[in-house]
Amino acid sequence: MNSATWIERALNRAVQDGSGEHCPAKLMAAVRYAVFPGGARIRPKLCLAVARACGDESLRCAAAAAAAIELLHCASLVHDDLPCFDNAIMRRGRPAVHRAFGEPMAVLTGDALIVMAFESVARVAGVPARRLQALMLVLARASGMPSGIVAGQAWEGEPHVPLLDYQRAKTGALFAAATSLGAIAAGSVGAAWHALGEKIGEAYQIADDIRDVSESSSALGKDVGRDAVLGRPNAVHEMGIDAAIRRLEDLMAGALARIPECVGAADLRAHIMSEAGRLLPTKLARPMRVVA
Amino acid sequence: MNSATWIERALNRAVQDGSGEHCPAKLMAAVRYAVFPGGARIRPKLCLAVARACGDESLRCAAAAAAAIELLHCASLVHDDLPCFDNAIMRRGRPAVHRAFGEPMAVLTGDALIVMAFESVARVAGVPARRLQALMLVLARASGMPSGIVAGQAWEGEPHVPLLDYQRAKTGALFAAATSLGAIAAGSVGAAWHALGEKIGEAYQIADDIRDVSESSSALGKDVGRDAVLGRPNAVHEMGIDAAIRRLEDLMAGALARIPECVGAADLRAHIMSEAGRLLPTKLARPMRVVA
Repeated sequence: MNSATWIERALNRAVQDGSGEHCPAKLMAAVRYAVFPGGARIRPKLCLAVARACGDESLRCAAAAAAAIELLHCASLVHDDLPCFDNAIMRRGRPAVHRAFGEPMAVLTGDALIVMAFESVARVAGVPARRLQALMLVLARASGMPSGIVAGQAWEGEPHVPLLDYQRAKTGALFAAATSLGAIAAGSVGAAWHALGEKIGEAYQIADDIRDVSESSSALGKDVGRDAVLGRPNAVHEMGIDAAIRRLEDLMAGALARIPECVGAADLRAHIMSEAGRLLPTKLARPMRVVA
Repeated sequence: MNSATWIERALNRAVQDGSGEHCPAKLMAAVRYAVFPGGARIRPKLCLAVARACGDESLRCAAAAAAAIELLHCASLVHDDLPCFDNAIMRRGRPAVHRAFGEPMAVLTGDALIVMAFESVARVAGVPARRLQALMLVLARASGMPSGIVAGQAWEGEPHVPLLDYQRAKTGALFAAATSLGAIAAGSVGAAWHALGEKIGEAYQIADDIRDVSESSSALGKDVGRDAVLGRPNAVHEMGIDAAIRRLEDLMAGALARIPECVGAADLRAHIMSEAGRLLPTKLARPMRVVA
């Protein structure tokens, strides 16, 4: 079974487990709408790729962890799109959740998805205590305070924003959790895999900045030019497009250099390179010059 | 150490663990404001009382679980008070979180508190795998879909509301989790303790309805008469004040009858009776006629 199938199955299972005749229908519909169809599922794919690289053959726990990461990501999209934050109209080529289901249901959808992330991992049977504890703690740190995605979003309400803290929390946290959780699910030590995820997250942040400036709204499926409108830092505004692309290549090289020793390092390297190739908008695409 | 001290310490620890120089200052302040000073802490006290009744002497895990329940309760207050829901002005005698810190920070505060609840339990060292898994699953079921507090709030957006599902999710879920978690933390079976919590939750719901109708805003520390304004079901509107008080007494008797066999049943019974005595507004207070 390939990674995409593992991920969609685990997500479906999580949403299904939360549904039923005693659940309010609108909430179920809004949660499903927020999760399916997904975007690139880049974080859960990274999680599974690391688990495979660490020699995990069952992938049962890794798939639940990968789903958890994606559920947290979906939760953050739904809440960040709210009128009181980005006031985004479109997401993944459709109206944002609060435009389709109203603001109250969008708040509750995000809440339900956060809970579902923890539940997804807690439902896996037979996970040893230390491993379960480590999985839960990594999930919590990636999502909450002091430096998870919730904290990342909260930086946007501060008068002075330390750029490194902001980007690490807002983007890096979930990528670092993706690599750490993949390793932990496979029985390896999560901490050794943190830096790899964080580097990929940094690269992804730059790629997102480039797309925000140079991509069309229809190609991206969401509003573009939002960083300028919302006064958020953007690498292209700061260093220009060519320098931003070079920075992206450097970060990817740095990521590859941080792959810990493991049985499937070559495959993982190939996975990361292949995903990196999709990060640039089509019109800017060129063979990536990445040397680890 | 008495229960109140255990609870405030565990809550302080949870908030402290989420704080630090890399955390946005406003988020830290808003989270602290949402948790301290608390209300009656009735749910975490119930959780600890059950753990003691089950013979738990360390209370370390039970205190973390009790804090988790209270953090989820605080999260639901912050989100339910938002302008898109109840649009409440006051809470616990002070401006609601969104009035004191703005709407964006209130959304993030609720999110952070949900995560902190799971983290509080995950941080306890040395909990056996099955127990940790059971604790996490009870927390998730009490808070998310299909029938946790998030689902309870979502019922308010449905055209037809099944009253039992609504009240079980909106109020019963956290009380049932309080008794279940206390038992699980003590090494007992949580399921046997679910009905007790649910009954107390039903009683609490009626008491809340009575206070909403008959208490003054300053005595309660929050807006009153909100059920009528928001068109929510209220037992006093449905059956009158005397019948509502009798129903409350019946429910408390039903709760006492549902205490499972345990070493500390007498103390637990006394705790529940003492807490029940505080449920009615002062001007309606009378010796409760509760016969188990």
